[in-house]
Amino acid sequence: MLEYSEHLGQQLKFIMEIDKLKAVLRQSHLVEDKRRENSAEHCWHLAMATWIFADYAEESVDVWRVVKMALIHDIVEIDAGDVYIYSDFDETEKVRREQQAATRIFGLLPEDQALEFIALWEEFEARETAEARFAAAVDRLMPLLHNYYTQGLSWQKHKITSAQVYARNQARISEGSETLWQAAESLIQEAIAKGYLKS
Amino acid sequence: MLEYSEHLGQQLKFIMEIDKLKAVLRQSHLVEDKRRENSAEHCWHLAMATWIFADYAEESVDVWRVVKMALIHDIVEIDAGDVYIYSDFDETEKVRREQQAATRIFGLLPEDQALEFIALWEEFEARETAEARFAAAVDRLMPLLHNYYTQGLSWQKHKITSAQVYARNQARISEGSETLWQAAESLIQEAIAKGYLKS
Repeated sequence: MLEYSEHLGQQLKFIMEIDKLKAVLRQSHLVEDKRRENSAEHCWHLAMATWIFADYAEESVDVWRVVKMALIHDIVEIDAGDVYIYSDFDETEKVRREQQAATRIFGLLPEDQALEFIALWEEFEARETAEARFAAAVDRLMPLLHNYYTQGLSWQKHKITSAQVYARNQARISEGSETLWQAAESLIQEAIAKGYLKS
Repeated sequence: MLEYSEHLGQQLKFIMEIDKLKAVLRQSHLVEDKRRENSAEHCWHLAMATWIFADYAEESVDVWRVVKMALIHDIVEIDAGDVYIYSDFDETEKVRREQQAATRIFGLLPEDQALEFIALWEEFEARETAEARFAAAVDRLMPLLHNYYTQGLSWQKHKITSAQVYARNQARISEGSETLWQAAESLIQEAIAKGYLKS
């Protein structure tokens, strides 16, 4: 018989449940391997990027709070799946499925931590705080970087145009960080010039 | 031409360089897929676990500092590779290669961040602070969990005995968290009882 408190048992159950995020595949590809990235390694990469880029946040942010959001922002995908931002998806249905997932998965934790994690995830989704806006901006920057450094691999696979890239990213990134948007725009323009992205 | 500051350019270079950590394979296996875990998704999982288990730390810890160490602790493996804790390895040579890797990889960052990251990595390795001891303890707990929940997959592959598991983990985990060591010991005993681990 396993012997530990119910409290620790709930936490261990959650820790083993989120192992499944390593099997959720995104549309981004790794720069060297060219295999599709999974959502767990993306969460790590996003946490690193938000930490490193924190000084570029449009408003001053609590970096640890931003990193917390980065670490958990995609956990709902274990149940709800990853939705490609350039696909035609039903926003209401996506929100409903992700909320259900948040309730089930974070609900495995002891109540105080479950409430903390759900609140953080909702804060990220709502983008009403400086921390959430910055985390969401860097979350949109990452696939641009992966596309640029794989010569537009997933843009080409899905026949994405620069107009779609601007429509999906400009407002989201610039409201979190104008500096990062300027860098992103420079990458997009260079991607068009090099033929990675259709104009 | 890409147009951004040299400072941001150095940070972007680092961010894209650490994409390679997603290709470094460990000996742990995912619970459902059974494929080998990579070091980037492990860093994410460890960051989550240290955050969630922080109340069990033997001494009170700055959780954000622990999570920082979790996020970066394996980046040196991009150059130095992952060393299996039960293998016969040359400790001096491992330290030399990892220090060289830390200098090269963290050295891609602007100087202030490079110094901060190298200091955090050295702190983790030295285990002289409460934060480092706790991060190192949870880092040892994770493979025990993966082994237990894959019916001892990597223990069996490498013919590991319970004596080796105790020798490599008991002191390291209990000095970071006696509570987590008690849970780990309960898992080890149960693994022996179920035949996942040779006594």
